[in-house]
Amino acid sequence: MDLDFIQRLIKPTETKIVLLVLDGVGGLPRESGGLTELEAAHTPNLDDLAARGICGLQQPVGPGITPGSGPGHLALFGYDPIKYQVGRGVLSALGIDFKLTPQDVAARGNFGTVDEKGRVADRRAGRIPTEKNKELCALLREIELPGVELFIETVKEYRLLLVLRGEGLSGKVVDTDPQEIGEKPLEPKPLSPEAEETARLVREFLGQARELLADHHPANMVLLRGFSKRPHWPQVKDVFGLKAAAIAAYPMYRGVAQLVGMHVLDTGDRVKEEFGLLEDRWNDFDFFFLHVKRMDSAGEDGDFDRKVALIEEVDAQVPRLLELEPDVLIVTGDHSTPSLLKYHSWHPVPVILWSRHCRADEVDRFGERACMAGGLGPRIPAVDLIPLALANALRLEKFGA
Amino acid sequence: MDLDFIQRLIKPTETKIVLLVLDGVGGLPRESGGLTELEAAHTPNLDDLAARGICGLQQPVGPGITPGSGPGHLALFGYDPIKYQVGRGVLSALGIDFKLTPQDVAARGNFGTVDEKGRVADRRAGRIPTEKNKELCALLREIELPGVELFIETVKEYRLLLVLRGEGLSGKVVDTDPQEIGEKPLEPKPLSPEAEETARLVREFLGQARELLADHHPANMVLLRGFSKRPHWPQVKDVFGLKAAAIAAYPMYRGVAQLVGMHVLDTGDRVKEEFGLLEDRWNDFDFFFLHVKRMDSAGEDGDFDRKVALIEEVDAQVPRLLELEPDVLIVTGDHSTPSLLKYHSWHPVPVILWSRHCRADEVDRFGERACMAGGLGPRIPAVDLIPLALANALRLEKFGA
Repeated sequence: MDLDFIQRLIKPTETKIVLLVLDGVGGLPRESGGLTELEAAHTPNLDDLAARGICGLQQPVGPGITPGSGPGHLALFGYDPIKYQVGRGVLSALGIDFKLTPQDVAARGNFGTVDEKGRVADRRAGRIPTEKNKELCALLREIELPGVELFIETVKEYRLLLVLRGEGLSGKVVDTDPQEIGEKPLEPKPLSPEAEETARLVREFLGQARELLADHHPANMVLLRGFSKRPHWPQVKDVFGLKAAAIAAYPMYRGVAQLVGMHVLDTGDRVKEEFGLLEDRWNDFDFFFLHVKRMDSAGEDGDFDRKVALIEEVDAQVPRLLELEPDVLIVTGDHSTPSLLKYHSWHPVPVILWSRHCRADEVDRFGERACMAGGLGPRIPAVDLIPLALANALRLEKFGA
Repeated sequence: MDLDFIQRLIKPTETKIVLLVLDGVGGLPRESGGLTELEAAHTPNLDDLAARGICGLQQPVGPGITPGSGPGHLALFGYDPIKYQVGRGVLSALGIDFKLTPQDVAARGNFGTVDEKGRVADRRAGRIPTEKNKELCALLREIELPGVELFIETVKEYRLLLVLRGEGLSGKVVDTDPQEIGEKPLEPKPLSPEAEETARLVREFLGQARELLADHHPANMVLLRGFSKRPHWPQVKDVFGLKAAAIAAYPMYRGVAQLVGMHVLDTGDRVKEEFGLLEDRWNDFDFFFLHVKRMDSAGEDGDFDRKVALIEEVDAQVPRLLELEPDVLIVTGDHSTPSLLKYHSWHPVPVILWSRHCRADEVDRFGERACMAGGLGPRIPAVDLIPLALANALRLEKFGA
């Protein structure tokens, strides 16, 4: 469904929708034939919800595609993640809560090592510690460029964010990171005439950076990629008629929510705090995106048991949410993160959609295999969930007479 | 599948397909955990057919989209309902069996109320009775416009149909219905140069109508929308190679069938009569669309038990149909109409496809939850059913060598 198509069907209604995202909740059995993390977890509240709701497995981007956090969430927000792509520079900024203005061009940067001939010897400068990164960023802030304001921010280890702020800048500049050892960094060439000035400024920045970093081997170079401006996308208020709030402790998720026009609430990072904030602000919005991060981190650490425990921690909070009496509740993840793989994966993600009108199926358990047999099917595209939520919230008009 | 793609695969064969549409058959349980109307109905014949066929739930338009009768049927006829859209004026004409010619521009009209400043005070003129509508339409027939023939027809209550018939008319005219109380009716502006003459004629019509209706408060204005010409779409004879007949008691369904080139048969509105007509004309066509309306009306009335009884009435006729020995039989609805919601809904619709070659699944019951587990899946797009029916009728060539 096009956003345009949905937008024409929106009708204003006083109903509330909650999208509860358990980051990386989908998993795999520890050994063949065993239980996944979610199946192993004791989740009486989510199981009860599954029994009363319609279930399935949702596919965030496409068959076999492992989503990053950006695409995984955009799909859950109803935005086709292949159509609505965010530049790496912008994602980097979102990831550290850097507020981009419409004037900004952002790039993701690496501190790297170049040899005496100027060829890249290490794209990550031996993974320098974050403290060293901060020191070097402070140094780089000495750089001045005519007519633009410059922001140089530490992300983590060897990663940094570069933002140029000024009139008439463009993101259409070639990456300088050659992504190959033994190659020289590339020239920041403009990809279109309107980017000539930006490319010139980036070249100037890199020249000064090289001089400032010369004595800081292995971090003696900055490699840049993903030059991009903050995109201007349709906003949830307009396309879905939703006054939406995001409750998310980590910057990346707050940032993606902001791109689609959600109001980002300040929250602590404990699950209890997030659910408490939902209660506090219940009357102020008609859509809540509630993001719980840490089971993804447990999956990435390969810690099956910790992931199980974190899922159980969320389950214990579900009754608080139900007491608020949402009209529609969706529980799912933005992707799978099997602790077996220690990484995001392509596996579709269990989903429950509950409403008074959902037409419950026979699934009575929130787990990968149980949800396969659900009424939403074993591969419903994640982007289809918001139109379904809107329908269940009685927020869509009939199409055609 | 594009119609073009299917068309290239068509081969002539002497097989017969029946599409039995139970309007609004899909439903919801009266209370959470209970049975739907279809599940509650005693349907031994449809259950037996389900056991021998392949079942599923079909999605008429898209996830969360509640279809009107037009889109719901077009999808069942194999036409993408988002691509093949019918203007409201044309749908209005179809709904009262008004035969549109290629020269006609049709608009849906409301009798409305305007205040002394010409602002809309009531878009439905206090829902005047149909008798009053007929009286006013007779009055409006006094209007004469140069060079065009004018048709003004009562639909129901405050609704009427306006048709202009003449050379060079266009449907590209702005709605005059502002759809907001307190606004003045809009000017019927042309949306493209070829509609200038049509817009001028509509303006002239509205001016005369205002004078004629001046003393008929609350029905002192006509508001028009959905100016449109009868679309010229690919015909089922050409794209599917089918000599198709429609057996439908209600004008709207006959009209939509006619748009895709079906031959519309005259029938009474009793279920028995419709099945009798199918028997009578069995040798004359190779595709029959048989439409049973009244369970939709029961759903819209919120009458669970009447809907159950009507489903049972259709079930009792099924053996007559089977005795004709169709090669392929599809049983489904054009949308769900849960008596709980008293309205069309977005829920996917149970479907049985039976043929000698259908590869039966394990479903042995025609009901929402039973069909979820069927071989067609829980969300097969409705447009996919005709290609499947053609295949099962051995009417499609192999694709590629």
